[in-house]
Amino acid sequence: MVPLSPPVAEKSVHTKVTRRILIIDCADEQGLIAKISGVCFEHHLNVIKNNEFVDHAQGRFFMRTVLDGDINEADFISALQAVLPSKHHFKLVDAGKKRVVIMVTKEAHCLGDLLMKSYYGGLDVEIAAVVGNYDVLQNLTEKFDIPFHFISHDGLNREEHEQAMLNVIKPYEADYLVLAKYMRVLTPEFVAQFPDRIINIHHSFLPAFIGASPYKQAWDRGVKIIGATAHFVNNCLDEGPIIKQDVISVDHSYSAEELAHQGRDVEKSVLSKALQLVLNEQVVVYGNKTVVF
Amino acid sequence: MVPLSPPVAEKSVHTKVTRRILIIDCADEQGLIAKISGVCFEHHLNVIKNNEFVDHAQGRFFMRTVLDGDINEADFISALQAVLPSKHHFKLVDAGKKRVVIMVTKEAHCLGDLLMKSYYGGLDVEIAAVVGNYDVLQNLTEKFDIPFHFISHDGLNREEHEQAMLNVIKPYEADYLVLAKYMRVLTPEFVAQFPDRIINIHHSFLPAFIGASPYKQAWDRGVKIIGATAHFVNNCLDEGPIIKQDVISVDHSYSAEELAHQGRDVEKSVLSKALQLVLNEQVVVYGNKTVVF
Amino acid sequence: MVPLSPPVAEKSVHTKVTRRILIIDCADEQGLIAKISGVCFEHHLNVIKNNEFVDHAQGRFFMRTVLDGDINEADFISALQAVLPSKHHFKLVDAGKKRVVIMVTKEAHCLGDLLMKSYYGGLDVEIAAVVGNYDVLQNLTEKFDIPFHFISHDGLNREEHEQAMLNVIKPYEADYLVLAKYMRVLTPEFVAQFPDRIINIHHSFLPAFIGASPYKQAWDRGVKIIGATAHFVNNCLDEGPIIKQDVISVDHSYSAEELAHQGRDVEKSVLSKALQLVLNEQVVVYGNKTVVF
Amino acid sequence: MVPLSPPVAEKSVHTKVTRRILIIDCADEQGLIAKISGVCFEHHLNVIKNNEFVDHAQGRFFMRTVLDGDINEADFISALQAVLPSKHHFKLVDAGKKRVVIMVTKEAHCLGDLLMKSYYGGLDVEIAAVVGNYDVLQNLTEKFDIPFHFISHDGLNREEHEQAMLNVIKPYEADYLVLAKYMRVLTPEFVAQFPDRIINIHHSFLPAFIGASPYKQAWDRGVKIIGATAHFVNNCLDEGPIIKQDVISVDHSYSAEELAHQGRDVEKSVLSKALQLVLNEQVVVYGNKTVVF
Repeated sequence: MVPLSPPVAEKSVHTKVTRRILIIDCADEQGLIAKISGVCFEHHLNVIKNNEFVDHAQGRFFMRTVLDGDINEADFISALQAVLPSKHHFKLVDAGKKRVVIMVTKEAHCLGDLLMKSYYGGLDVEIAAVVGNYDVLQNLTEKFDIPFHFISHDGLNREEHEQAMLNVIKPYEADYLVLAKYMRVLTPEFVAQFPDRIINIHHSFLPAFIGASPYKQAWDRGVKIIGATAHFVNNCLDEGPIIKQDVISVDHSYSAEELAHQGRDVEKSVLSKALQLVLNEQVVVYGNKTVVF
Repeated sequence: MVPLSPPVAEKSVHTKVTRRILIIDCADEQGLIAKISGVCFEHHLNVIKNNEFVDHAQGRFFMRTVLDGDINEADFISALQAVLPSKHHFKLVDAGKKRVVIMVTKEAHCLGDLLMKSYYGGLDVEIAAVVGNYDVLQNLTEKFDIPFHFISHDGLNREEHEQAMLNVIKPYEADYLVLAKYMRVLTPEFVAQFPDRIINIHHSFLPAFIGASPYKQAWDRGVKIIGATAHFVNNCLDEGPIIKQDVISVDHSYSAEELAHQGRDVEKSVLSKALQLVLNEQVVVYGNKTVVF
Repeated sequence: MVPLSPPVAEKSVHTKVTRRILIIDCADEQGLIAKISGVCFEHHLNVIKNNEFVDHAQGRFFMRTVLDGDINEADFISALQAVLPSKHHFKLVDAGKKRVVIMVTKEAHCLGDLLMKSYYGGLDVEIAAVVGNYDVLQNLTEKFDIPFHFISHDGLNREEHEQAMLNVIKPYEADYLVLAKYMRVLTPEFVAQFPDRIINIHHSFLPAFIGASPYKQAWDRGVKIIGATAHFVNNCLDEGPIIKQDVISVDHSYSAEELAHQGRDVEKSVLSKALQLVLNEQVVVYGNKTVVF
Repeated sequence: MVPLSPPVAEKSVHTKVTRRILIIDCADEQGLIAKISGVCFEHHLNVIKNNEFVDHAQGRFFMRTVLDGDINEADFISALQAVLPSKHHFKLVDAGKKRVVIMVTKEAHCLGDLLMKSYYGGLDVEIAAVVGNYDVLQNLTEKFDIPFHFISHDGLNREEHEQAMLNVIKPYEADYLVLAKYMRVLTPEFVAQFPDRIINIHHSFLPAFIGASPYKQAWDRGVKIIGATAHFVNNCLDEGPIIKQDVISVDHSYSAEELAHQGRDVEKSVLSKALQLVLNEQVVVYGNKTVVF
């Protein structure tokens, strides 16, 4: 039994009032909740949902608040900053729909799930475009009237290929990039263009089976459970902050191919749930970890 | 964590030898395995996979065997029948791809998942057609080049509407009908046309919350887990033999609408896994229950 | 995969500062968090953990805060009440260890788990006594140097039996009563002595299989999942507010007896987790439901 | 949701007929089931339960059969061997209760669960003795009238310590040794005394977090799921054939200590289920993997 991501209804209220999400991450000190919620109250903001987390080991405070109301953003922000410790991270975003670009190679299951869920409203996202280093998934993408860009890596070195992709991706001004089984390693230069904004699905229960052919590795080891991990991409392969993981039971009767076949369902499910969390602004990156509200 | 359906690779071997699935269901008696497997051996059939189950309480024997080899089917069957108890059920089918017709109303998530999995090979099935009592899902179906038949119930009584659907469905000669959130109750007469061949997804963990609005019922009761149930349809609403069930954790913060929203994922997943089991001939109906090999 | 109860370390800090848990439940209005956390700040209380929940449908606000610091409780409470809406529920308790009395009949698995976890510190509780209407579990209880009271119902009517139990239970001044497979229905008069303070484990996934022999009912229905439910006891059998539920997968090969045998593990696990949540003051009863922070 | 081990009722039939379990592991060839079940039939054995598995990649056949009946064992075995390929593994054991010796260090949760389940019949096993390199768990063990042997490693080298333990363990003639959080590495010489007969619980989801402090490693990595693994011990630490694994969901709010605290429940549960499978003779070791019927 897998707990799903928290409810998404925060976004779906039909109201003319602007809904914003406020994320604060700063050194812990006494009275932070009182001060921050005090500022919200003074600006007549309605707190729809509020979560805090204090990492007592590191003395760090995290807060995510969903706020309804009409404010002068600059005034609100300067009032907030006046009560926060001098070093803080701060994010105030509109709760509206986010835009993503999806990168793929050949496998359809993750892309297909995102396209389908976006189509029927199971995922609250605008898929601006799909970019593939093969054209295998062009037909599927275009069924949903979404542009597909085929950027072959043939004859290009890694930097040239990534530059070609960037040329296509950048104009979409996506909030996030989603690697839906994109099977090439990205350079630090590419990743640096989208800090904490690239979400990858790895087909194992990290940190087990890092690297290539995790299902084959799992079969060789005779594990009784396999899994998938969605994480932000940083410069170390399969090492970025984990957003979501899930597993399924398997047994001796599965071949490596059957593990891979069955693993698809958990891959697509984990990626889709992780993306929803990110789109909801529920995920705060913190060192090499995440706080998921 | 949800165990998936057993591996499907039984079907995917590339060989010119015919693969068949043999299902036997009869009174238990000593020596049945020896006799049945003896007949298979004499006919030079290779046993790829074999499962038995004995219900000792009721003295009933079940066997499912995947067999490779070239046989004279009539000879094989008469040899088998010679060793079986006089009253037995017997099924010998080709392991090849099955054909289904899907019935829908307005909700896209189950249909969408079946269309997508069929498209990329995640489900080994031929979707011959989709029939809807609304035309909401016509566009989605036709994206995948599958015929959609809109049979409105407007102005028709139940019998007329079902007859109109039967007129469309029958010519497809489907192995199974799949009710992918088809929201009307079928008459016994309709069901009788497809005995143990109609698969429904019910949006609750049966037998909890039988009937209408199960998510609203679940919310009213304050449950901490919700679920979905795939079952064969018989004449009692929500009472047919259960094939597959699964659940997800929820909490107090979910509204009834959010329960329904989150429940979609488990509905589509349970339906798809149940259908795969049925397509694999892994499900034997037995009274109002199933044996799932 | 089952998410466990939230971490219990809130209690385990070694400090001379008093730790308290504040629970507030009142009509929702703007500024509540600011006002309440403001009062905490003014009294120099350190917020260790804070959770809120707003039921927007019913306009109800819930808050649970873990607070460290030395205060004049009366002053703090009157300051709080000054900022709360006139109708509110209010609880301020020490975060220390709670005391329970356990009621049993004959089955050992739930009692045994509670005794064992209490022994090695897996559950932070003082088991003051065990009361049984049979003496079957006396020996097990006394292994752990806990008094066992055998109050047979033989020759007593229900009221007399309950009165005899009350006479034994009352002097222990327990925070909670735990029905660890106590197999008799309690009268409303008995229940009224411990409002929202009696925790029961029901051996099914409520509301499925209410009443007697749920495993036999589950077997008859051919379900593929069985479960257990821990709930507060109110006057309607199996109808009280649900605290925790969990399930396990089963299949056709389980007899009703085997379902019961396998169900024991989930029963004991659900009861123990629910009890930990209650002992942690993480559960707020609200109508016939619970908010579990 | 975690599927439990298969039903254990195979053992619990009250009958004077001898119940045996037959395990065969040999090269695959056509007709094996027919031949083996034919021999069983000729000896008037009743097949209570039968499972086969063919590893088609490696051409290996596995069979486990539960058989009722009175036979001359020598005759039966020689008849069986006559139909099996020349190289085969073969095991014919009485289905009765097995005897184990448990080795521990200081942690009570796994030992406590085994003692308690054995006490109330939740685990069908005779715990002959407990051996500890500390005396911390002596009191707990003796509550259940089971001998505890305290064999300190103080002042002994590894070989001397293991020899002292062997001197105590050997006379019990245990079927299996259970390492219930025994925190020292065993030498190959010790392990060689009990080939495929030592069961260990490792407190991580292997192969993730091999070695020391897996919960600390898990916390550092920020995983969202933790687990436990029961495996047979061979000469490579944490590398033996896996019998059972399970996981629980965690989140950012867990400290390393809380992960360890919560992990106890899954450790004890996985060890107990794995042991039940082994006691039931459902586990066949096969290279560095297991077939679990």
